[in-house]
Amino acid sequence: MERQKEKVAVIGAGSWGTALAMVLADNGHEVRIWGHKPSQIEEINRAHTNQKYLPGISLPESIIGYSSLKEVLKDIEVAILAVPTKAIREVLGKIREVQETPLTIVHVSKGIEPDTLMRISEMIEEEMPDTLLKDVVVLSGPSHAEEVSLRHPTTVTVSSKNMNAAEKIQDLFINQYFRVYTNPDLIGVEIGGALKNIIALAAGISDGLGYGDNAKAALITRGLAEIARLGTKMGANPLTFSGLAGLGDLIVTCTSVHSRNWRAGNLLGKGKNLEEVLNNMGMVVEGVRTTKAAHQLARKYDVKMPISDALFNVLFNGVNPKDAVDTLMARGKTHEMEDLVNVLDLKE
Amino acid sequence: MERQKEKVAVIGAGSWGTALAMVLADNGHEVRIWGHKPSQIEEINRAHTNQKYLPGISLPESIIGYSSLKEVLKDIEVAILAVPTKAIREVLGKIREVQETPLTIVHVSKGIEPDTLMRISEMIEEEMPDTLLKDVVVLSGPSHAEEVSLRHPTTVTVSSKNMNAAEKIQDLFINQYFRVYTNPDLIGVEIGGALKNIIALAAGISDGLGYGDNAKAALITRGLAEIARLGTKMGANPLTFSGLAGLGDLIVTCTSVHSRNWRAGNLLGKGKNLEEVLNNMGMVVEGVRTTKAAHQLARKYDVKMPISDALFNVLFNGVNPKDAVDTLMARGKTHEMEDLVNVLDLKE
Repeated sequence: MERQKEKVAVIGAGSWGTALAMVLADNGHEVRIWGHKPSQIEEINRAHTNQKYLPGISLPESIIGYSSLKEVLKDIEVAILAVPTKAIREVLGKIREVQETPLTIVHVSKGIEPDTLMRISEMIEEEMPDTLLKDVVVLSGPSHAEEVSLRHPTTVTVSSKNMNAAEKIQDLFINQYFRVYTNPDLIGVEIGGALKNIIALAAGISDGLGYGDNAKAALITRGLAEIARLGTKMGANPLTFSGLAGLGDLIVTCTSVHSRNWRAGNLLGKGKNLEEVLNNMGMVVEGVRTTKAAHQLARKYDVKMPISDALFNVLFNGVNPKDAVDTLMARGKTHEMEDLVNVLDLKE
Repeated sequence: MERQKEKVAVIGAGSWGTALAMVLADNGHEVRIWGHKPSQIEEINRAHTNQKYLPGISLPESIIGYSSLKEVLKDIEVAILAVPTKAIREVLGKIREVQETPLTIVHVSKGIEPDTLMRISEMIEEEMPDTLLKDVVVLSGPSHAEEVSLRHPTTVTVSSKNMNAAEKIQDLFINQYFRVYTNPDLIGVEIGGALKNIIALAAGISDGLGYGDNAKAALITRGLAEIARLGTKMGANPLTFSGLAGLGDLIVTCTSVHSRNWRAGNLLGKGKNLEEVLNNMGMVVEGVRTTKAAHQLARKYDVKMPISDALFNVLFNGVNPKDAVDTLMARGKTHEMEDLVNVLDLKE
C-alpha cells in the first residue's frame, strides 16, 4: 500500500495512547507522544518502553516522547487525544494556549461528562476555538491496548461530522492487523463506547458475586438494549449499537481480563467498597463517572435504564451489589419483545 | 407463587436434559427422565447423580430415571426433548410408536438439519402425526447446563406458534434462578440458537490461534450480523437476534469455557484436524453439522455469510484455520454500515 507519511502527535502516554502510537509508527508515520510525567517520557525515549502502562512491550524507536505540549504540537495537523475524560478540558485548555494552526483532533477516550451530559466531541468543540479546530474524529471499538501492542488482529470504527476527515484518519491507522471501518453515526459511536463501561462494571459485579456466564450474558444482552434505547433517543442510528463500537466493544469490555471497568466491578462484587476499588486500580475507571452521567441522561430523555440505575445505586447510594443484581435478574414474567421493540420504535 | 404441579418427562439424560429436570424438580413437578443407557439411568435412580454429564452435582431424589420410552411417557402431556439434533428423528420415531395421547413437545436442542434445512420444530411436526402432537415449544437462551445445575441465575426464552402453550411452559420452568421470557418469533429463536454454534467454532479457532479478545469480539459482532441477515430472510424478526436467544446465547457460547463448540474450535485453531477434534470431545458438537446447513442456507436465500463460509472451508475443504481467520479480518476498507444496514433492509 502506498501511504502518505504524516506527522502525528499523540497526547497522552497511557496504555491506549501508546498502543496507537505504535500502530502509527508501524505505518511509517513520524510519531510524537506527549505525557505529563517527565520520567515516563524519558523512559520512552531512552529505553523505548512504557512499563507502567504496557509492561514487557518494546516500542518502535521512531516514537519520540515530549514533555512539552508546545513542542509536541509544533507543525502538527493531526493530534490523537488519549487522555481520561476527566482530564480532557484541562488538556485542551493547555493545547489552546500553545497551538497556532488548525488541528484535526482524534479522540479515543470513552465517556460522557456528568452534569453537562456532553459527549467528548462536544467538549472538544466547546473548548477549542474554531480557528484552532479543523475536525473532530472519534476512534472507538473493541480494542484492548495490550492486544494492539502485541499486534493482534483488531477492528475499530472512526466517525466524524466530516466523513472526509474520518476517512483520512482511517488511512492513517489502517494496516494488516489494525482494521479501521468508517461509520457516519458520530453520536452512536460515542455513546456506545461510553455506556458500555457501565455494563462492564455490572458484569464484573456479577462475576465477583460468583454468578456464572449465563447471568453475565443476560446482563450484556439487556445492557446493550438499554444503551440502544438511550442512544437512539439521543439521535443515534440504532444499527450502530449492533456494530463494533456498540456490541463489539461491549463484549470485549465485559469478558476480557484486560478490562479495567470489569475488574473494578469484580472487586465491588467481592465486597470491596468504591473507595477501596478506586485506590486498588491505580488507573482511571471511566465507568464510574459514566454511570453518574447515564443516570442523569435516563431522566433527561425519559428512558428506562434498569442496569445503569442499579449500578448508580450500588456506587453512590450504598445498595448491596448482590441485592442489585438479584433484583435485576428476578423481574416478573416478561415478553422479551417489550424490551427490544422499544429500541426500534424510537427510530420511527 | 402458587404453582400447578405437573407430570413432565425429559427425553434425553445429557447435561442439558438433566439440568432442566433439576429446575422442574425444584419447582415441585413430578419429573421423569429418559436415557438410552441403562447404567446411566441406574446411576440417576440409585446415586442421584449423572457424573458423565454433570460431574459433582447431586440431583433431587424426586427425579426418576426410565430406560423405557413407553413407561416414561405414560400419562404424560408435556415432554422436554433434549437429544442431539442428529438423533431427533430417530427418537421421535420411537415416541410415535408408544405414545397414545397428544403431547406438547418442548425442544431444547440447537441445530438445523443439513439437506432438508429444517428447523427442529419443523422436524417435530413432520415426524409426529397431528393426533399425537398438541404443540411444539422451543426453549433457548444463554444457559450452560453446568451453571443451571448450580442454580446460578439464568435467563431463557420460550417460543411457539401457539403462545398459550409457550406461556404454559414459561409457568412450568420459571423460578427465582431460572427466568423465562416469551417471544412470539419462533423462527428467530430457533435460528439464533442454531447458528450461534458456528460463530462459537470460529471464535474458538481465533482463540486457538492465539489471537486475542479484540479479534474475537470482531468475529462475534460480524457473526451476529450474518446470523441476523440470514434469519431475517427466513422470516425471523430481526430484533430477536438482539435478545437472549440471539446475542445472549452467542456471547455465552463464544466466551465460556463450558462451550463445546468453542472448545472444538479452539482445538482446530491449535492445529488438530476435524476427526481428532470430534474424537477428543466425546460429546456432540452441533456446530459442525450446522455449518453445513448454513452453507446451504446462504445459497438458498442468497445471503452473504463470510464467517460461515470460511468455517465450512476449514471443516470440509481443508483450508488452514489461520488463513481463513486472517482473510476474514483483512477485508478492504469498509463502511461499517454497509454490513449492518443489510440486516434491516431485508425487513422492509
